[in-house]
Amino acid sequence: MAKWVNENKAEIKKVVEATDPFIKFNDVVPYQTANNLFLRFIYDTGDAMGMNMATIATDKTLAYIENKFPFLKHVALSGNMCIDKKPSALTLIEGRGISIVSEVVIPKDVVAKMLKATPEGVAEVCYRKNLLGSAKAGALGFNSHVANIVAAMFLACGQDAAHVVDGSHGFTTAEVNENGDLYVSVTLPALMVGTIGGGTGVGSQMEALKIIGVAGGAKEAGRNSKTFAEIVAGAVLAGEISLMGALAARHLTQAHVRLNR
Amino acid sequence: MAKWVNENKAEIKKVVEATDPFIKFNDVVPYQTANNLFLRFIYDTGDAMGMNMATIATDKTLAYIENKFPFLKHVALSGNMCIDKKPSALTLIEGRGISIVSEVVIPKDVVAKMLKATPEGVAEVCYRKNLLGSAKAGALGFNSHVANIVAAMFLACGQDAAHVVDGSHGFTTAEVNENGDLYVSVTLPALMVGTIGGGTGVGSQMEALKIIGVAGGAKEAGRNSKTFAEIVAGAVLAGEISLMGALAARHLTQAHVRLNR
Amino acid sequence: MAKWVNENKAEIKKVVEATDPFIKFNDVVPYQTANNLFLRFIYDTGDAMGMNMATIATDKTLAYIENKFPFLKHVALSGNMCIDKKPSALTLIEGRGISIVSEVVIPKDVVAKMLKATPEGVAEVCYRKNLLGSAKAGALGFNSHVANIVAAMFLACGQDAAHVVDGSHGFTTAEVNENGDLYVSVTLPALMVGTIGGGTGVGSQMEALKIIGVAGGAKEAGRNSKTFAEIVAGAVLAGEISLMGALAARHLTQAHVRLNR
Amino acid sequence: MAKWVNENKAEIKKVVEATDPFIKFNDVVPYQTANNLFLRFIYDTGDAMGMNMATIATDKTLAYIENKFPFLKHVALSGNMCIDKKPSALTLIEGRGISIVSEVVIPKDVVAKMLKATPEGVAEVCYRKNLLGSAKAGALGFNSHVANIVAAMFLACGQDAAHVVDGSHGFTTAEVNENGDLYVSVTLPALMVGTIGGGTGVGSQMEALKIIGVAGGAKEAGRNSKTFAEIVAGAVLAGEISLMGALAARHLTQAHVRLNR
Repeated sequence: MAKWVNENKAEIKKVVEATDPFIKFNDVVPYQTANNLFLRFIYDTGDAMGMNMATIATDKTLAYIENKFPFLKHVALSGNMCIDKKPSALTLIEGRGISIVSEVVIPKDVVAKMLKATPEGVAEVCYRKNLLGSAKAGALGFNSHVANIVAAMFLACGQDAAHVVDGSHGFTTAEVNENGDLYVSVTLPALMVGTIGGGTGVGSQMEALKIIGVAGGAKEAGRNSKTFAEIVAGAVLAGEISLMGALAARHLTQAHVRLNR
Repeated sequence: MAKWVNENKAEIKKVVEATDPFIKFNDVVPYQTANNLFLRFIYDTGDAMGMNMATIATDKTLAYIENKFPFLKHVALSGNMCIDKKPSALTLIEGRGISIVSEVVIPKDVVAKMLKATPEGVAEVCYRKNLLGSAKAGALGFNSHVANIVAAMFLACGQDAAHVVDGSHGFTTAEVNENGDLYVSVTLPALMVGTIGGGTGVGSQMEALKIIGVAGGAKEAGRNSKTFAEIVAGAVLAGEISLMGALAARHLTQAHVRLNR
Repeated sequence: MAKWVNENKAEIKKVVEATDPFIKFNDVVPYQTANNLFLRFIYDTGDAMGMNMATIATDKTLAYIENKFPFLKHVALSGNMCIDKKPSALTLIEGRGISIVSEVVIPKDVVAKMLKATPEGVAEVCYRKNLLGSAKAGALGFNSHVANIVAAMFLACGQDAAHVVDGSHGFTTAEVNENGDLYVSVTLPALMVGTIGGGTGVGSQMEALKIIGVAGGAKEAGRNSKTFAEIVAGAVLAGEISLMGALAARHLTQAHVRLNR
Repeated sequence: MAKWVNENKAEIKKVVEATDPFIKFNDVVPYQTANNLFLRFIYDTGDAMGMNMATIATDKTLAYIENKFPFLKHVALSGNMCIDKKPSALTLIEGRGISIVSEVVIPKDVVAKMLKATPEGVAEVCYRKNLLGSAKAGALGFNSHVANIVAAMFLACGQDAAHVVDGSHGFTTAEVNENGDLYVSVTLPALMVGTIGGGTGVGSQMEALKIIGVAGGAKEAGRNSKTFAEIVAGAVLAGEISLMGALAARHLTQAHVRLNR
C-alpha cells in the first residue's frame, strides 16, 4: 500500500483538492509499523490554520482509498502521526504549520547597556541552559521560554491555545560573532497559525490581528498567516533575549519579585 | 559537588524553607554533564502553583552554595532541567507539579448507546493511534487530545496557559476488561496547577474556581490544588473517551462539520 | 540555500553519481536550524553497507556546492543528521539503511505447546512491557531485546558492531487475531547491513554469509543485502517471541540459571 | 502500591540481598502508568556486570511482593523501565551501570600540531554537529562516534556487544577555555561493564582485561569494573577528539580512502 500511495500522488491530489477550493495538496508520506499504515498528509491551507478543511479532505480521501481497496481496515482518521497538540520529535524534525527562523545581531555595547550583560555571558547561558540542559532532560524544546510568548500571542490573536504545545518545540541559539557582537536566533518548526476562521473572527482577537495588519485572508493566499508567524517569531526572539539577558545578569529573581509574577 | 549535595540535603532544606513559610523542600537531585552540574529542586508549594516562590528559594539556595564554594561559577538560575514549559522526556518520566491517574470502567452497553461504538473498537483506536502512532512519531504524548481539555480548563480557571505544554505529556489507555467492558485511563505526569496566586485571583477565573469549590488555599495545604488536578484529569478523561469514541464510530468529521469547528 | 537544494536535485544527483559507479542518488533533504543548514543525503549503495562511498560522494558534493556558493562555510562533513550510530527519533521515524517488517501468525495450540503460554498472555506482556513500559522510559526501542539478536547476527556476519545501535530501534507488537491465534511482528527501521566490503570479506564472517547464501554482491544489486536483512529480521522475530513467551510463562529466570547466562 | 514500596525499602533490601552475597540493594523507584506499576530496581553488583544476579534477585523480590499482595498481577519480570539494550531518554537522564565523565585540556599548539586544527575549529564542529545536529535529529546521543570505540573495547574485553546500545548515549562537549586552549569532555551515562562473569573469562578477552590490569574481581568490590569504565571513557574521549579534529581539518575522507575503511 505504501508503494501505491507513493505512485499515485497525482490521483490523491485530485481527490483532496475536490473537497475544498482553499486546500492545496502538497504531499502524503506513508509510514509503516507492524500491520499499520500511517499516512501523513501535507496541505497548504492558505491563511486558515486549516484543521477543519484538512480533516474533511483527509476523511474523504481515506473513503476513496478504502473504496478502492476493500481489504483495508480504516482504524482512525488521525493515527497520531499528524501529530497534533502533542510533544513529539516528529514535530521538531519535520515541522507542522509554519516553520520559521528569526535572528538578530545585537552590538556588544547595546548588550551591555540594555541587558547589563556581555555577549559572552548571554551565549554561555544559552549554551549551558538551552542546549546542554535541555539535551540532558531529553527535551524537544531547546529554548528558554518560547511557550510563554507563543501562549500570549495565541491568546491575544485568536489562535488555538492547545497549539502552544506545537509552538513550544524548537531552538534558541546565541553566539558571539567575529566582531564580538551577539547573534541570537529562534527556530520554530511548528507555528500552527491562521488569520481567518476559528477564533480569529472573535471581537478583541480580530481587533488584535487588525492592529498588526494581518486580519483575514490576504490577496496572496497565506501571506497574512506567514506575516503573523513572522511577528510571533519576532516576539519570541525578543522574549528569549530578555530572559537570557536577565539570567546572565542575575536579575531574574528581582524582576519576579518586583513584578510579583 | 554532586556528592556534597547528596550528603547535605538537611542543610539545603533549612536554607530553602527559611525563604518562605509556604515552601517545603522535598529533594534536590544533582545531574552532571561535562563540566556542568544541574540541580533539580523538588518543592511542595501547597495550593500555589509556586513558580515564584520556587524561583526565589532556589536563587537564595544557590547564593548560599556559591558563598560556600567560591570556585563554583553560577551560570543560570534555571538550567532547563526544571524543565518548565518545554516538551521533554524528563517531564514524562519524573513528572512536574501534580502527577495523576484518572480511570473509569464503562459497561459495554453504555459504550454502544453513548458512543455508538464497541469496547473493542475504542480499545483498537487507542492502541493503534495513541500508542503505536505516537511511538512512531517519537512522541511524549501518547494520547488523543489531552492538550485541548487542559487548555480549556487552564484558561477558564486562571492557570498559566504556557503550562499546557507540560500538561500535554502523558498516556491514554483503553482496554477491554474480563467482562467485556471498556477500561479507559489517562495518566498526566505534569499538571502545573494552583488555586491561589497568579491568574487565580482574577474575576471570572476566580469565579470558575469557586464554582467547582477549589478557590484559594485549603485548610490542609495543597488540598485545593490536588482536587482541582483531579477535576482536570476527570475532564481530560471524558475528552479522550469522546474523541476515541467518535473516531471508532467515524463521527469525527460529521461533528466538525456540524459544529463548524 | 534549502530552496536551491530542493530545486537542483538533478544536478546534485549527477555530481554524486560521478564519484562511484555503485552509488545511486535517491534524495537530499535540507533541514535548517538557526544559521545552520543540514543536508541529509539518501543513497542506494547496492549490496555494500556503503558508508565509505557515501562519505566520499558527500564530500565531493559539498566541495561542488561550496565552490558554487563561496559565502557558505563548510563546518563538518557529518552534521549528525545522518545520524550514524547514535540513538535518535529520526532513525526511528525515517529509517536508515534497510527498513523492514517481519511478521508471523502462531496458532494458539502451538503457543501453548512451544511457549507454555497463551496468545493473550504473550500479547499482554508485549503491550505492557514493549509499548507502555518503553513509552514511559522515553524510549525509541519498543521491543524486548532486538539488540541481542542484531548484535549476534552482526558479529557472526561481518557487520559493523557499532551499528547495533541503529538496529536496536524499532517495534515489536503482539496481538490476538480474530481466530484466537497470536500475531507477532517486528518493525526494524534501521538495519545498516551489507554483504560486500568492510568485515564481510573476513574469514569466518564471509563463511557465515556464504552458508546463508548471501555473500558478496548479487546480480541484482542490493538483492543480497536485502535478503540478509530479511534473515536478520526473521531471527529477531524469533528472539522476541522466545523472550516474550518466557516472560509470559515466567520461565526467564529459570532459563538464565540453567544456561548460566 | 507505590506508597508501600516507598515506605518498605528496608524490607525489600533484605529480600534482595538474601538472594546473592554479591548483590547490594541501592534503591527501587516505582513509576505508575494507567493500571501498571513499574518498579525500577537499582543494585550494586560489584565487579560483575550483574544482569544475571539482578534478574534472579528481582524475580525473588517480585515473588515476595506477590505473595504479600495476592490482588497484584505479575505481568513481566522486565517491564522495560530497566531499560536494557534499548535507546531511551531514561538511560540518558538517570544512567545505567556506570556513569562517567572524562575530560581533558589540550594546549592550542598541540591542537595545531597533532590535529592540524584550531581549538575554535574543533569547538565549532562539536557545537554544530554534536549539539545542534543531534538536537534536530531528536537524538539521545550528542556525540560524534562514541559507539565505535565502545564497540571496539566491548568486543576486545568480553563485554556484551548489545550493551553498545546503552553505551552510545551521552554527550561530547568541546570549548575554548580562557587561555585559548581546547577543553573536551565525554559524559557516558550508561557503561554496562564488568570484569568478572559473562564473556570476561574467555581466552583473548580475559587476556585483554589482564593487560590493562582489571581482570576478575578486585579486593575492593567494583574497583576493577570502575577502572575499566575509566579506560573505556578515556579511549572514547580520544576517539571523539580524533574525529572532531579530522572533521575540523577536513581530513576525514582522505583518512577513509587511505585506510580503505
